[in-house]
Amino acid sequence: MNIPNTNLPRIVIIGGGFAGIALAKSLKNQRVQVVLIDKHNYHTFQPLLYQVATGGLEAGSIAYPIRKVVQEYQNFYFRLGFVNEIDTQNQKVKADIGDLRYDYLVLATGSKTNFFGNKEIERNSVAMKTIPQSLNIRSLILENFEQALLTNDIHDRHSLINFVLVGGGPTGVELAGALAEMKKAILPKDYPDLDVRKMQINLIQSGERILDTMSEKSSQAAEDFLINLGVNVWKNVRVTGYDGSTVTTNTDLTFESATVIWTAGVQGALPSGIDTNAIIPRADRVKVNEFNQVEGYDNIFAIGDIAAMLSDKNPFGHPMMAQPAMQQGKWLGENIVKKINKKPLKPFVYNDKGSMATIGRNKAVVDLPKFHFHGVFAWFVWIFVHLFSLIGFKNKAVVLTNWIYNYIRLDREGRLIIRPFKKKNVTSFVADEV
Amino acid sequence: MNIPNTNLPRIVIIGGGFAGIALAKSLKNQRVQVVLIDKHNYHTFQPLLYQVATGGLEAGSIAYPIRKVVQEYQNFYFRLGFVNEIDTQNQKVKADIGDLRYDYLVLATGSKTNFFGNKEIERNSVAMKTIPQSLNIRSLILENFEQALLTNDIHDRHSLINFVLVGGGPTGVELAGALAEMKKAILPKDYPDLDVRKMQINLIQSGERILDTMSEKSSQAAEDFLINLGVNVWKNVRVTGYDGSTVTTNTDLTFESATVIWTAGVQGALPSGIDTNAIIPRADRVKVNEFNQVEGYDNIFAIGDIAAMLSDKNPFGHPMMAQPAMQQGKWLGENIVKKINKKPLKPFVYNDKGSMATIGRNKAVVDLPKFHFHGVFAWFVWIFVHLFSLIGFKNKAVVLTNWIYNYIRLDREGRLIIRPFKKKNVTSFVADEV
Repeated sequence: MNIPNTNLPRIVIIGGGFAGIALAKSLKNQRVQVVLIDKHNYHTFQPLLYQVATGGLEAGSIAYPIRKVVQEYQNFYFRLGFVNEIDTQNQKVKADIGDLRYDYLVLATGSKTNFFGNKEIERNSVAMKTIPQSLNIRSLILENFEQALLTNDIHDRHSLINFVLVGGGPTGVELAGALAEMKKAILPKDYPDLDVRKMQINLIQSGERILDTMSEKSSQAAEDFLINLGVNVWKNVRVTGYDGSTVTTNTDLTFESATVIWTAGVQGALPSGIDTNAIIPRADRVKVNEFNQVEGYDNIFAIGDIAAMLSDKNPFGHPMMAQPAMQQGKWLGENIVKKINKKPLKPFVYNDKGSMATIGRNKAVVDLPKFHFHGVFAWFVWIFVHLFSLIGFKNKAVVLTNWIYNYIRLDREGRLIIRPFKKKNVTSFVADEV
Repeated sequence: MNIPNTNLPRIVIIGGGFAGIALAKSLKNQRVQVVLIDKHNYHTFQPLLYQVATGGLEAGSIAYPIRKVVQEYQNFYFRLGFVNEIDTQNQKVKADIGDLRYDYLVLATGSKTNFFGNKEIERNSVAMKTIPQSLNIRSLILENFEQALLTNDIHDRHSLINFVLVGGGPTGVELAGALAEMKKAILPKDYPDLDVRKMQINLIQSGERILDTMSEKSSQAAEDFLINLGVNVWKNVRVTGYDGSTVTTNTDLTFESATVIWTAGVQGALPSGIDTNAIIPRADRVKVNEFNQVEGYDNIFAIGDIAAMLSDKNPFGHPMMAQPAMQQGKWLGENIVKKINKKPLKPFVYNDKGSMATIGRNKAVVDLPKFHFHGVFAWFVWIFVHLFSLIGFKNKAVVLTNWIYNYIRLDREGRLIIRPFKKKNVTSFVADEV
């Protein structure tokens, strides 16, 4: 990878998400060489992906060039590449852009969509973990509406404007709310020659309640918000199949739908080569101790979604969200420096700042560690926290401009099909479409 | 296409560019049925494509949903589709989404890149007439830099950061200027481990001077600006071939380059079926009279780039730019209403407001009909005119925010490879790249 060999210990970080960037910042200008590898040249602010998918924000507003973050760091190298494998024997990462020796390795690869082995669902549904995927969903929703105008077959038309969102976590809930807002304020004006009242938004949750990592009070408030917005919330229903037209479930409920958005599960985005004893099967996350050291390795660490720091208090590890990732990244930076200087490491302590989700205009739920609230004030808190968390002044300013405009005008002008997307015809897609 | 048949005369407009949108606005709520067909669901503000290509603006900031423009128009239908052919005998357009009868047809299909029949150049170079193409160029530039870091072969590295822009019109000039700004302010900071001084920007013009539709004074000023920015301006050189690595010319000048951006020619984007007598060979534009009627047809009109209104004063028709297109669109709307009401039509009169181009920060050239100027004030005029011309308040606000930020911080944060693009590997591209 053309990284100069120096006397400095080399720390290789795989992944420029919340965890990787926090670690990079924490290692800024220490006496180490840092190589950060990511498959994108930008950091993605994942909590706002659903707004890109529904045309409320542009992709560039929630992406930030990684090179810009690390521009002024000494002995810092960014490489755009995808790491397939770790050779722990020879202390090397193997990527599509070549191999690289490491002294310390940090897995910050995050998580990817988990279809639980169902290839049919994987093939026919769409996921929303990355910006390209969000843009695909945006195109797909709009293409379906355009196509619905062209058909006289009532069955086809219904299927084209019947949306099925699988998974009642924050992503599914926020996306359902945003779609419901589009149905209310935008689509009837854009498609006067279509009966938009017939558009259905179905949110399917396998468990007892949506947002099941939040408080029961917040789950209930979110569900009430969604139902008021006209979303059909199906609980205790598990999707078992989707052939591209019919969604089957473990009950006798079925859906005819051209669009299934799958947010029902995640798994670690784990390169191969890590000892299987350190891996939680199916979840593909790696077990780490309280110093984020991967089980069985002295110089391999994991932070963020990929890391499972199991304890009696957290039998499944920390929640797979931005907050633990950022805190672990920052903490590990300090610990690695300690380790290099042969000082004792400090066990990670998670500072739970709470969690939140927005359901739509003026509607959000917020769980603070000791206090739950929802409604307009919660929504302002949500706005403030998300604006504040975005990297970069320009992104903050542009997102705020968009949000004020969208709020006042009840509009979302990003309803653009820049790259057409039809899941079934992926092969007919050409990059230089004009 | 599922358009209801009414007693109103049906006007079919092909194309939602400057001409088509101006015509649509001009026909707003007249006693006619209007069907606007475009292959994109958005209007593109083409003069700023080069800023999308160089990361200064996001795609969404220069695109505007066509449905939003026509949302409140009565008897107005938008259809997303591509028209292949006109059946003038039966008064029908034939599109990929079905056929449609017309009473009046307006070709507002604009222009596309002209490779003058050179398939090799077409295959290996990239064009910049659409938003997807601009995003491809953005990705390509950044991918080349990332790749240049990885190679130890000096020849390859040179080729990857050697840029050849063919065509010295406004597009080539503005793109060259923007690349030169990136070379100066951004790339050395982003790629500290690469010698960015070795990056070359070559602008190749076949004629005597660049911007040859502008005044000689402006051509000279623009050339001086470019040369000061470090661009190599080659005049009287015609590119004859490009095999993906070597650019050959009609002189003994050659270039080793991984990136050739072709802006050297345009031709009409003409559907088939129009009588060949009405078509200007090679240019693929249609001859129209002073009422924008296509030669030989009573109820077929053409406006904008596709229309050639030849006269002694304008032996090649009006310039293929936004101004004549918008003026013709507005004018034709009034003429069609006159025609339906059996009133005499008014011959089109072009109001030449001048032309302009920007070369970079504080640098622009402006030609008013009787007055030419360049420099900082010209640049402010350019900024003001372009902001003012953008459709929509949100786009204006976001573009202004970006420009202020970019100006103050000497930065462009849109340097994001959202969809990787390598011209040679188009087939390996998949839509749901993650």
